[in-house]
Amino acid sequence: MIQITLPDGSVKSFEKNVTPLDVAKSISEGLARNVISARFNDLTVEASTPLTEDGSLTLFTWNNDEGKTAFWHSSAHVLAQALESLYPGIKLTIGPAIESGFYYDVDFGDYHISEKDFKDIENKMIEIARGKHEFKMRSVTKAEALSLYKENEYKTELIENLEDGTITFCDHDTFTDLCRGGHIPNTGIIKAVKILSVAGAYWRGDEKNKQLTRVYGTSFPKQKELTEYLELLEEAKKRDHRKLGKELQLFTFSQKVGQGLPLWLPKGAALRERLENFLKSAQKKAGYEMVVTPHIGQKELYVTSGHYAKYGEDSFQPITTPKEDEEFLLKPMNCPHHCEIYKSSQWSYKDLPKRFAEFGTVYRYEQSGELHGLTRVRGFTQDDAHLFCTPDQLDKEFKDVIDLVLYVFGSLGFENFTAQVSLRDPENLEKYIGSEENWNKAESAILNAAKDKGLNYVVETGEAAFYGPKLDFMVKDALGRQWQLGTIQVDYTLPERFDLTYKGSDNELHRPIMIHRAPFGSMERFIAILLEHTAGNFPLWLMPDQVIILSISEKYEKYAKKVLNLLENNEIRALIDNRNETMGKKIREAEMKKIPYMIIVGENEEGEEKISVRQHGGEDLGMISVEAFSEIVDKEINKTLKQF
Amino acid sequence: MIQITLPDGSVKSFEKNVTPLDVAKSISEGLARNVISARFNDLTVEASTPLTEDGSLTLFTWNNDEGKTAFWHSSAHVLAQALESLYPGIKLTIGPAIESGFYYDVDFGDYHISEKDFKDIENKMIEIARGKHEFKMRSVTKAEALSLYKENEYKTELIENLEDGTITFCDHDTFTDLCRGGHIPNTGIIKAVKILSVAGAYWRGDEKNKQLTRVYGTSFPKQKELTEYLELLEEAKKRDHRKLGKELQLFTFSQKVGQGLPLWLPKGAALRERLENFLKSAQKKAGYEMVVTPHIGQKELYVTSGHYAKYGEDSFQPITTPKEDEEFLLKPMNCPHHCEIYKSSQWSYKDLPKRFAEFGTVYRYEQSGELHGLTRVRGFTQDDAHLFCTPDQLDKEFKDVIDLVLYVFGSLGFENFTAQVSLRDPENLEKYIGSEENWNKAESAILNAAKDKGLNYVVETGEAAFYGPKLDFMVKDALGRQWQLGTIQVDYTLPERFDLTYKGSDNELHRPIMIHRAPFGSMERFIAILLEHTAGNFPLWLMPDQVIILSISEKYEKYAKKVLNLLENNEIRALIDNRNETMGKKIREAEMKKIPYMIIVGENEEGEEKISVRQHGGEDLGMISVEAFSEIVDKEINKTLKQF
Repeated sequence: MIQITLPDGSVKSFEKNVTPLDVAKSISEGLARNVISARFNDLTVEASTPLTEDGSLTLFTWNNDEGKTAFWHSSAHVLAQALESLYPGIKLTIGPAIESGFYYDVDFGDYHISEKDFKDIENKMIEIARGKHEFKMRSVTKAEALSLYKENEYKTELIENLEDGTITFCDHDTFTDLCRGGHIPNTGIIKAVKILSVAGAYWRGDEKNKQLTRVYGTSFPKQKELTEYLELLEEAKKRDHRKLGKELQLFTFSQKVGQGLPLWLPKGAALRERLENFLKSAQKKAGYEMVVTPHIGQKELYVTSGHYAKYGEDSFQPITTPKEDEEFLLKPMNCPHHCEIYKSSQWSYKDLPKRFAEFGTVYRYEQSGELHGLTRVRGFTQDDAHLFCTPDQLDKEFKDVIDLVLYVFGSLGFENFTAQVSLRDPENLEKYIGSEENWNKAESAILNAAKDKGLNYVVETGEAAFYGPKLDFMVKDALGRQWQLGTIQVDYTLPERFDLTYKGSDNELHRPIMIHRAPFGSMERFIAILLEHTAGNFPLWLMPDQVIILSISEKYEKYAKKVLNLLENNEIRALIDNRNETMGKKIREAEMKKIPYMIIVGENEEGEEKISVRQHGGEDLGMISVEAFSEIVDKEINKTLKQF
Repeated sequence: MIQITLPDGSVKSFEKNVTPLDVAKSISEGLARNVISARFNDLTVEASTPLTEDGSLTLFTWNNDEGKTAFWHSSAHVLAQALESLYPGIKLTIGPAIESGFYYDVDFGDYHISEKDFKDIENKMIEIARGKHEFKMRSVTKAEALSLYKENEYKTELIENLEDGTITFCDHDTFTDLCRGGHIPNTGIIKAVKILSVAGAYWRGDEKNKQLTRVYGTSFPKQKELTEYLELLEEAKKRDHRKLGKELQLFTFSQKVGQGLPLWLPKGAALRERLENFLKSAQKKAGYEMVVTPHIGQKELYVTSGHYAKYGEDSFQPITTPKEDEEFLLKPMNCPHHCEIYKSSQWSYKDLPKRFAEFGTVYRYEQSGELHGLTRVRGFTQDDAHLFCTPDQLDKEFKDVIDLVLYVFGSLGFENFTAQVSLRDPENLEKYIGSEENWNKAESAILNAAKDKGLNYVVETGEAAFYGPKLDFMVKDALGRQWQLGTIQVDYTLPERFDLTYKGSDNELHRPIMIHRAPFGSMERFIAILLEHTAGNFPLWLMPDQVIILSISEKYEKYAKKVLNLLENNEIRALIDNRNETMGKKIREAEMKKIPYMIIVGENEEGEEKISVRQHGGEDLGMISVEAFSEIVDKEINKTLKQF
């Protein structure tokens, strides 16, 4: 008999060689039907793996990330079998599960696989799946393994690098693959399959090696789930910020300026400025002061701050000067500059907290292959601020920062978010800098603040940075995707490294505590997420153009201009489409540009000194006065944009 | 007889060997008394030089720059004689006239000259001057010259490098110096002398050479002029923007961040932002669109633009990346980025002009010894814009830019300015890029615009850049000093280099013309000049703090806060001084901070719900309501800040 401990802490006795599936059955038939993988004592095992000793067991279903990984890993085996049966003579290499699916890298020899082959592959995979073939692991010797793959130089290379005694194969149906394990019980639960794309991929990621073909696919336990996933993909493609950014003329990239260095076009620059002004105005009320600092600093500055050790050698290299012995770096962070601003005066406890804010553009090197639109760039602007306070002020300051972050999210339509509080690892206290007393104060300040503010939060012990605990916000966008946005971090290190002080009421010098915070994170990334979240239908207060005036013919140009002036007097951003085109075409183009309101002006409107209003998406608001329309606009703006 | 042509074109006959002084006498005795130097056929000559051939003669008095140069050059001879007579055995090296005076570099041997010696030197110089000694030039052979200076290695080195036959000495009184000429008639017109300072200076400016002592002085034909000059120096010292910037807490520098890289403190950053918003708002009305571009670009971008050839090797060196073969440069100018933005769309003539504006921070290397406060920095923000237009639009665009520049100057209290139009050199047309037709259009556009706008301008033929003609503005500050501010340049090169096009009404592609313009020039330099011009008493609309509320005691804190709120509702920027200090001290400190209005609140004020108002500089406005005060403020603001 062996003792199995379940996640709820209960311990049950089973005969030796019991499988996770058996354990599931002993709990409920329903669970047994859904179990697709398991973890035993920190090892991923099959649902069918015999358990031979005491230990902890976690059962996974499709609803766990681990379950999905096993599902997609197993689907990759099915894909490999299907490919080998459809295209005999191909050479399989590796095929892992990835986020939302799996791929297999294959040497197809002379055959060029393309989209027209996808249907055949899917059909073959479904045919195999329906066979309900079990996945069975077995150990093999290195010699056996090499003999199976004697004509496959890729697998041979993989096996050569493995130790004899650690090599396992997985069999299902007539197919065998070199594999470390972690499968679903049998192919039968794979009900829906989709081959998504093919792409070139170098063997082992090295461009000196042969280029293979990577076949991407995904699979689901239900057809409905696949359909939903494909719809989501379709929707995500439509909302891709790179596509929308181009259509809405927000930003562009230039090969000549350099990859990962966005150029903001007028509409995008205006959008950024509106976001910045929105935050500036709230920050002003919250007692922040704006500062401006350069985009470079001496290397020594970042050696002092510790950023050189972190970013230095892997980032943009130092800038030298022609006649002097100097080295500068593009700044990877604004904090060292703000520490120097703090240090330029001697502060008293009565002056604190000081809250220095800057929309500071920083530069960090990313490999060109990793760049992606505005979410992965080489230069970006942080909505940065650093608060310097006494330990007694930390509690209030932290809460005030949360208020500001929640205000930002609310005004921008992110209503679905969670928070993560990262604390010290109590087993490894020596790796954190700062006194026990201060850490306790800071950790309880964050926990109290999260509780008081009614945040939906999880606590992650051991996830604090070495310099202090932190609170991160995760938002869910309209497609259900999670993004990390907004961070608040307590820092004991930089005040130490920069020898920052304030004079206390005891007339002695003390160390201030520093809070780093950025509600947006970066302007670039935030705008990208906002674009994908809203599909370009920004909250009305933020829209580059709120209104487009469509004149029925050139005859009404004068009246259109009059309406434009009236709107501008009411601080509504509008433009005129006065082209000699059909109204249908003008409306279609305005819809494409996502402009929230279309105003149509012609003979009737001019005669009655009114405007006909149509909302983006189709609703007709009829013929009304400019004043009535302005009230509608104000009302809608006030729905999202509250006073801070 | 020889024929002498005077500047008015008249030609007079004189006997050979007539001197410029004789010519002056022939015109008027008054002129003769004032003539101190002359130019004959492009050569600077003495007033006493005999003229031996036909030629053009210009006579200089103290009122000409050339006259001042001769005056100060001659004063340097007198200084040298005085030093030699006071400190026998010293070695003289060189002693030129400079702006506002002269210096002499001297090897004093073991003697350490200091401020306590200045009076003796001045007295000795005046004593020499009163002797009315004539300056007389004579030619010497190299051998003679070397024999006079056989114990002076510096003069010996100078003479060694001269060609025999070109060496001249100047004698006056008992003193002789190696000299090229250009003196006043005699020492007698030097009536007032001041030794200003001493400093170390390496022989020939090379730090490997011996360090000499540089003695700075100035001199004037009237005691009153010297007094005025010394007062001006004193006032300039008080207005030094580095001193005021510190006192008013506008900006700071950090050795750790790096020299020449200003850090803007909250009050300075707010001032900058106010200036930026002021210009942005006018630019918006003028049809400009803001863009945002990165602070780096690939080296190739600047090779294309030609900036690499201009700044490259002498500026900040290229930034490399760790894993890729890339080179980036800190941007020395924004234009290449704006060209790439223009290039990101295909424009039609109907879309033009495009006017892209950016407060773009650029970085240019300056040797650390040349850095000076905010006027000579290594990173600065240009209020940059680039206009792309058709040749037909150039005229109007140029005029509109002038309007904008004049609006900016007017709103900031610069009323005294002149303009300089720089045109091609008609003798060297081959050195300019762009067609004859376009140059003619551009030059006449600038001249017409300058004329139409009633500018006080001079035309400088041959001063155009190779890429186009330009208009520069020179402003005179409150101390009468000239500053170059604001430039408008036409550019044919960059559209060519970047292959920029627009589709004309003929459906063919054409080259747009580009205008570069920056009314402020750079935010850093402009604020420095504005600080020195206003001594920190900025126009009211721009003041960081417009009002300070001084409470008579802590008892009136609540009322002070109420007043603050009322002022803030009227968009007046105010702060409270609620410290437990005497009213006298509070007022003195508010005066130091240049805050335009002090509001005093105590029992009477609270009782009557009024405020007592005192203006910076002392005027008492009595006890009035907050509303009445707000009207005063509005009125004063509207006096300078007009609508654009």
